[in-house]
Amino acid sequence: MYIEKVNSPADIKSLSKEQLQIMASEIRAGLMNRLSKKGGHFGPNFGFVEATIALHYVFNSPVDKFVFDVSHQSYVHKMLTGRKDAYIYDEHFEDVSGYTNPEESEHDFFNVGHTSTSVSLACGLAKGRDLKGDKENIIAVIGDGSLSGGEALEGIDFASELDSNFIIVVNDNDMSIAENHGGLYKNLKELRDSDGKCACNIFKAMGLDYMYVSDGNDIETLIKAFESIKDINHPIVVHLNTKKGKGYKPAELNKENWHWCMPFDVETGKSKVTFDGEEYGSMTCEYLLNKMKADKKVVAVVAAVPTCIGFTEDKRKEAGKQFVDVGIAEEHAVAMVSGIAKNGGKPVFATHSSFFQRTYDQISQDLCVNSNAATLLVNTASVYGMNDVTHLGIYDIPMMSNIPNLVYLAPTNSEEYFAMLDWSIEQNKYPVAIRIPCNGVIHTDAKVDTDYSDINKYQITQKGENIAIIALGDFYQLGESVSSLISEKTGITPTLINPRFITGADEEMLEELKKNHSKVITLEDGILDGGFGEKIARYYSSSDVKVYNYGLKKEFIDRYSVDDILEQNHLTPELIVNDTLAL
Amino acid sequence: MYIEKVNSPADIKSLSKEQLQIMASEIRAGLMNRLSKKGGHFGPNFGFVEATIALHYVFNSPVDKFVFDVSHQSYVHKMLTGRKDAYIYDEHFEDVSGYTNPEESEHDFFNVGHTSTSVSLACGLAKGRDLKGDKENIIAVIGDGSLSGGEALEGIDFASELDSNFIIVVNDNDMSIAENHGGLYKNLKELRDSDGKCACNIFKAMGLDYMYVSDGNDIETLIKAFESIKDINHPIVVHLNTKKGKGYKPAELNKENWHWCMPFDVETGKSKVTFDGEEYGSMTCEYLLNKMKADKKVVAVVAAVPTCIGFTEDKRKEAGKQFVDVGIAEEHAVAMVSGIAKNGGKPVFATHSSFFQRTYDQISQDLCVNSNAATLLVNTASVYGMNDVTHLGIYDIPMMSNIPNLVYLAPTNSEEYFAMLDWSIEQNKYPVAIRIPCNGVIHTDAKVDTDYSDINKYQITQKGENIAIIALGDFYQLGESVSSLISEKTGITPTLINPRFITGADEEMLEELKKNHSKVITLEDGILDGGFGEKIARYYSSSDVKVYNYGLKKEFIDRYSVDDILEQNHLTPELIVNDTLAL
Repeated sequence: MYIEKVNSPADIKSLSKEQLQIMASEIRAGLMNRLSKKGGHFGPNFGFVEATIALHYVFNSPVDKFVFDVSHQSYVHKMLTGRKDAYIYDEHFEDVSGYTNPEESEHDFFNVGHTSTSVSLACGLAKGRDLKGDKENIIAVIGDGSLSGGEALEGIDFASELDSNFIIVVNDNDMSIAENHGGLYKNLKELRDSDGKCACNIFKAMGLDYMYVSDGNDIETLIKAFESIKDINHPIVVHLNTKKGKGYKPAELNKENWHWCMPFDVETGKSKVTFDGEEYGSMTCEYLLNKMKADKKVVAVVAAVPTCIGFTEDKRKEAGKQFVDVGIAEEHAVAMVSGIAKNGGKPVFATHSSFFQRTYDQISQDLCVNSNAATLLVNTASVYGMNDVTHLGIYDIPMMSNIPNLVYLAPTNSEEYFAMLDWSIEQNKYPVAIRIPCNGVIHTDAKVDTDYSDINKYQITQKGENIAIIALGDFYQLGESVSSLISEKTGITPTLINPRFITGADEEMLEELKKNHSKVITLEDGILDGGFGEKIARYYSSSDVKVYNYGLKKEFIDRYSVDDILEQNHLTPELIVNDTLAL
Repeated sequence: MYIEKVNSPADIKSLSKEQLQIMASEIRAGLMNRLSKKGGHFGPNFGFVEATIALHYVFNSPVDKFVFDVSHQSYVHKMLTGRKDAYIYDEHFEDVSGYTNPEESEHDFFNVGHTSTSVSLACGLAKGRDLKGDKENIIAVIGDGSLSGGEALEGIDFASELDSNFIIVVNDNDMSIAENHGGLYKNLKELRDSDGKCACNIFKAMGLDYMYVSDGNDIETLIKAFESIKDINHPIVVHLNTKKGKGYKPAELNKENWHWCMPFDVETGKSKVTFDGEEYGSMTCEYLLNKMKADKKVVAVVAAVPTCIGFTEDKRKEAGKQFVDVGIAEEHAVAMVSGIAKNGGKPVFATHSSFFQRTYDQISQDLCVNSNAATLLVNTASVYGMNDVTHLGIYDIPMMSNIPNLVYLAPTNSEEYFAMLDWSIEQNKYPVAIRIPCNGVIHTDAKVDTDYSDINKYQITQKGENIAIIALGDFYQLGESVSSLISEKTGITPTLINPRFITGADEEMLEELKKNHSKVITLEDGILDGGFGEKIARYYSSSDVKVYNYGLKKEFIDRYSVDDILEQNHLTPELIVNDTLAL
């Protein structure tokens, strides 16, 4: 195998075009080995094998510098830069993350997991180069799906100001995660259809030079194209027409399902992971579809991750005009739902916790300053969420809960979640965010409230004394365990509280607790800094009530084990009880 | 006067074109009256008089709905929708805010003060209309300067998905606040130069229909243009070529200086407000220019507000390639400075506190996950900052200080500020943000540290006992006053602490304080929720030390008096001492 002998890009430069072609097959076999057993981003990498080979053949990494947008197409780059073992040999799977990672290799410049950042980051590398008077090539790689993101568009618009070497490789496979949305994709199609020759050209309209490569999966063509622009003295876009999932029929045929995969059977393409239990994605979708049928004003909005609330292709069709995928455009999504609510609609926007970071200003300015009654569903906001450093769900509480006017709710079970969602959709006074539980779908027989308009009103679920446990959202069940253990160890029945609202203190209840409680324990599924527990600590800070805040340490963590992290932060019933009873 | 009789847009519909033309002059006189006495956004409004008249003549507000981007061109709209008195009569100046405001009028749909939001907000109004089956016109107005913002580009890209009536009026006066930056402005020039006919067209490339109006200051032309597209059944861009500052020579000649004005003499155009004291903007500029001369790797980056760190046109020229204005593109700016730092540059990005909200995700992902040593200068982050609800500087601490890896510094005086800035530029380990003091330029004779690499190390500036005052950033002087008053009232010398670091607790010092302090007072110039004081409250929450957190209530406030707000939040030495000694 050629790939087995590649320890750095230098090792591919002496290969013939035929040998490179053979290596492309070997690389696909390596990708297949890892992805069929471990899962990962399938389609983008299979489609970008030849382009990556050509880039490393022509350019001189790491002196010349590549930045791969969102890292979804960076696996082949990893294989060619000393990390092939992590794909070919099962025992090395854990050597690499799913994203570019400077800690792994000098060929990686950033840890990147959010979309639409490569052009701006690479602009920075280019500006740094120019300040130093250096001359290397700077190459940003970006997929067509990422182009709709505001950061990418800002970066592309700015790039022409550089006036020096800068290469933007657009990997156009005519797909986002799902289908693309937005007007610029019509232009990309025109460009593909006209072999890059149509006069109206989004990249030229942004002030950039432009080159089109119609067969973005042909190594020889690609090498010629890249050689022709190597060391270019101004910014240029190289627009590659590639095939997502190329080389594996099931992935070529169903691009959305194969954007990312779980472990699967190579022969049949069938996933090896089946899950037939309840999960909030499809439950939310069913709820919303019913709601839409009853009320034409209800509309679900997503930003390129429709299945985060269960909207697979068939469900999207079923919802029709009451479902909107804005593409990768979270800022637009939040501003738009504010406008929909203002004009009488009942919008629900859902995305992952980590992607809400894209839209802090829109939540604050477009939505909350204007107090429009849109609903935001915050998915995978939890230590149980995604565990890559770029996708963590443990920072949303400080980010969102301190924005004035926003009502941020933390349901503790399925019935409460849907009651809150229903209340939020039907009310017309508050911008509301709901933190979807992430510790499995837990049901309750208890009656849940249907009205949450008494803002910051906590609920006592177990009346006790001496110790009060305020257990937020999906850490409520942890609160129940802590309560049981305290009872078991001391005979005392603690008071257990479901605060429901993340955005404020129930001062009346907290004051009342002072009468027969000396200790208050707070539990939250997120970092402590700027979080929920600190509000309780502040409330009691000049009183005699002792407060014990439990949550996560403020830090970036990567590919962690949940159990380890919980243990490290003393987030087990035993450790909590030991700590708080000891003091 | 015609304008005196206009109480709603209905009142202008029966006027002849000649009468409308006369009214335009009256409107300019009204604008001149208010702006020469009170200040405000001059250039954008003077340039948009005719267009606003034509819009209200043709469309039927508030059934047809206008959304004015950033509100900088909304004054004429206010005059035509029942609020003319606030411009014509001095005694009514306080009737209106500087921004569109639904509380003022049913003709305003959003409180808007950040750029680049109108298209997305209006998309929402359009989608809400479509869900209800209504038919009104939805019109977004946006200036050329705002087009480079990610949210605007996301919105324009999405708009073509609407498939129903939607009108984007681009008010192209060929200026941002300063000159425009970005490739798309080359395309706008081509469009203007070709009377809208050049084949490469940024708006068409985004999937939109397009119409060009070369004389955007001619009422009759404008009326014809708007009449031709009223009730259009698909999205369209109407690109108007207008003249910024039109009708006042000084403003036409110096567009940057007249984007916004302080009170001025109408005859000479000379500002009535002169300030010859020290201010951090020009001091920062001088410092950076010197730094740049000594080190070619230092680069200052701004996003369309160059003068927030003193970079007037002459200073920008002096800095040359070591100064970058990215235009309205805060996301790009933060990602780019991360890249510059990664490739050996020493970047400093400055903008207003409220505009950092645009770039939460880039601070977290592009910068802090990657630990690149860029410096962020946070301007007007204070209760003493801008006091419009859309520009408040009191939310940055919860937003930024809880992002892992970021070192957020709060200098207490001029010497400390520049020492921190110098340290930050020269170190290569941490992303650093610095909160520029906002309570005037205060000097110290005391020696200030030059090294801040001992992260979260607070400084005791006065050793005392019993009570410790931790006074953050520009509330340090308040801390000094509180300390004096306590000494005066009790004879006790409190310990006074300059924490310097917003991003964490100095646990060693806090632990040490326990020995001979029973009370700790924290003071911060921002909201309490998610802020600095709560971290101290959490630290002591299970101890016997009582903590008193002083700061601002979490709420949106508008056009406030600083003294009132400080009083309401008990932020005076007298109130603080009364509270804390009483308990």
